[in-house]
Amino acid sequence: MAFNFDNSKKLALIKKDKSNKKAIDKKIKSLCEKINSNKNYFTTSSCSGRIVLIIDEEKKKPDLFLFRTHNKINFINLKKEIDKCKNKNLNRIMNKTVYFKQEPCILVVSCRDKENQWKLFSKAKNNGWKKSGILSLDKKLLTELMSTENISFPVINKGKLLVGDDFLKIVVKKANNNLKRGWEKIKRLEILI
Amino acid sequence: MAFNFDNSKKLALIKKDKSNKKAIDKKIKSLCEKINSNKNYFTTSSCSGRIVLIIDEEKKKPDLFLFRTHNKINFINLKKEIDKCKNKNLNRIMNKTVYFKQEPCILVVSCRDKENQWKLFSKAKNNGWKKSGILSLDKKLLTELMSTENISFPVINKGKLLVGDDFLKIVVKKANNNLKRGWEKIKRLEILI
Repeated sequence: MAFNFDNSKKLALIKKDKSNKKAIDKKIKSLCEKINSNKNYFTTSSCSGRIVLIIDEEKKKPDLFLFRTHNKINFINLKKEIDKCKNKNLNRIMNKTVYFKQEPCILVVSCRDKENQWKLFSKAKNNGWKKSGILSLDKKLLTELMSTENISFPVINKGKLLVGDDFLKIVVKKANNNLKRGWEKIKRLEILI
Repeated sequence: MAFNFDNSKKLALIKKDKSNKKAIDKKIKSLCEKINSNKNYFTTSSCSGRIVLIIDEEKKKPDLFLFRTHNKINFINLKKEIDKCKNKNLNRIMNKTVYFKQEPCILVVSCRDKENQWKLFSKAKNNGWKKSGILSLDKKLLTELMSTENISFPVINKGKLLVGDDFLKIVVKKANNNLKRGWEKIKRLEILI
């Protein structure tokens, strides 16, 4: 059967959310709704930016996450989460490395036609979503919109904490600031499209 | 004047290298040459992956780099480079943050037509260059091929070193391993295209 954009959109909007948290996160919901209310687009996945603690493995699997939030963090809570990794998951991380990662906001959008695909891509690319790229040239015409802010470093190695409190305090500040910059880009894009 | 792929390729291949290091780095040169020997493609920029120390500012400028290499590093040399930042550039970094970054390999390629653009993009995307995306749908038909390996964290804040030797030793190991994985992807892509 030939690909039909309207059918595909209808199905995408009624089907169950397949993400780990089973819902669009708050800070990007309004942008997703605006995109989905436009007859030329629908979103297939989204994230407003996040901070995670994750076991480092080449092959990505959902159960590698030890902590995950889409909100700002504070130093005390981050320390608690790191301690939890070392206490609750010691067996799992004994021979591994755990990374702290702050990742940028990301959106994947299916577009009706190439004109609308290009319009969305260039608007995002020119307004801070610098790591955007087109992912398919036929059928779903998928476009990935992604911002740039990121932090990523090994925090626990073989059960041993690698970093001190002063470092983590700066990281918390930088990571929160990065999330905030991502949220501002989300708001700006919502006005523009 | 209408865009002409062959003219554009000829000009690109004879013009001066505009990158900071004025040459294609060794580990990606052979892949670039293979791409440029194909009548359907030419490279517009490339990096085999790198490790840098860079002053954190919102607006990117070339003079923010305090150290930059495309080779593996060792702990002693990294410590020397970090010390140099604190000694030689203390005035410049006094109120700033310096980041350690290990960034993945990246290639931007102009393609003759959409068929060849899609072919290159999908080959890369399916062979480890997971952050690839199409950047333009007309004229130069630019495609960005990018891998995923990265580390990024604040290493000096307001002139003060934030991290200890044990942490930096693990970072050196991980960063070198990431570079090596990128180089393997470069080799694999060279065979495939």
